[in-house]
Amino acid sequence: MARWEPNARERLVSAALDLFTEQGYDATTVHEIADRAGLTKTTYFRHFPDKREVLFAGQETHTRLLAEAVAAASPTATPLEAVRAALDAVTDTFTDDRRAFAARLLPVIAGNSELRERSALKRLKLAEALTDALRERGVAEPAAGLAAELGVRAFDRAFGQWADPAGRHHSLTALTRHAFDELRAALAALD
Amino acid sequence: MARWEPNARERLVSAALDLFTEQGYDATTVHEIADRAGLTKTTYFRHFPDKREVLFAGQETHTRLLAEAVAAASPTATPLEAVRAALDAVTDTFTDDRRAFAARLLPVIAGNSELRERSALKRLKLAEALTDALRERGVAEPAAGLAAELGVRAFDRAFGQWADPAGRHHSLTALTRHAFDELRAALAALD
Repeated sequence: MARWEPNARERLVSAALDLFTEQGYDATTVHEIADRAGLTKTTYFRHFPDKREVLFAGQETHTRLLAEAVAAASPTATPLEAVRAALDAVTDTFTDDRRAFAARLLPVIAGNSELRERSALKRLKLAEALTDALRERGVAEPAAGLAAELGVRAFDRAFGQWADPAGRHHSLTALTRHAFDELRAALAALD
Repeated sequence: MARWEPNARERLVSAALDLFTEQGYDATTVHEIADRAGLTKTTYFRHFPDKREVLFAGQETHTRLLAEAVAAASPTATPLEAVRAALDAVTDTFTDDRRAFAARLLPVIAGNSELRERSALKRLKLAEALTDALRERGVAEPAAGLAAELGVRAFDRAFGQWADPAGRHHSLTALTRHAFDELRAALAALD
């Protein structure tokens, strides 16, 4: 049986982010990440399938939280009300100690096309999961996909603001609610 | 100077699609693609930077057409009217002989995660270019991003319908207009 490594996952993520920031994503190997975390390559691959995935940890949890919250929303909630509840459920898990991590994560992703691709696909999957959850509630297409897109878009915008030192006075939940309201208001001015 | 190869680009795209369909994307090499097209690997790399990119040819043209049409739209056009004009400009270039290509392309992309990633990033870039063109017209965020997203979403939906044998009685332009109108109608029912 594998040796128990306390906080192995968190240590690997943190070590990866340090190395990617210091020497670039391409120049960093999985071996170096494991080494920096004081763990082995075998332990690394027990937690992540490849080098890229270490930066996208938690995605499955977010997807599950979103879907559960949409399902749990009041039967009378509109599609956008259900999405708002889902955003609250996810953003509540982003405590303030994760802000510094976010601030380091975004430039690393922006600076590497391979990571941007993975990030774009992850965003797509998150939107699909949210769309599926809305369809389960009886929301038809294309409304389900649109409502999901608005939610993911609000989250993306707010996450960037939250990671920025200028946004440090607001919680991710408050920023996301604000971004979502802005999007709803902007819809009315499109035509 | 390089030898002139008539229709080299089209031949490479077609050969790649044949091979990806026959034996899978992962099992196919650039050498095989060039060979099937009756060309050399050197010629391949003069047209495409890697194996994936052969399936996303034409993307730059679409991006340029979208941006030009948004810029050329009447100064009084609403953001959605400008996007509609841009969609017309792009979809008009999809003549009926490209339908069979689209029908073969979509399953190849859907069946490979590397291609899905590239496709997701390309979609993101297209939406960004459209957003930038709208901002040039004075459309503020988040309205510009939303209008662009609606346009790309309508195109994606229509492209899938167009590639399907069931959609063969309609032009891509007609299908995209219809999808765009459906999205606009769905917006009203979100809340």
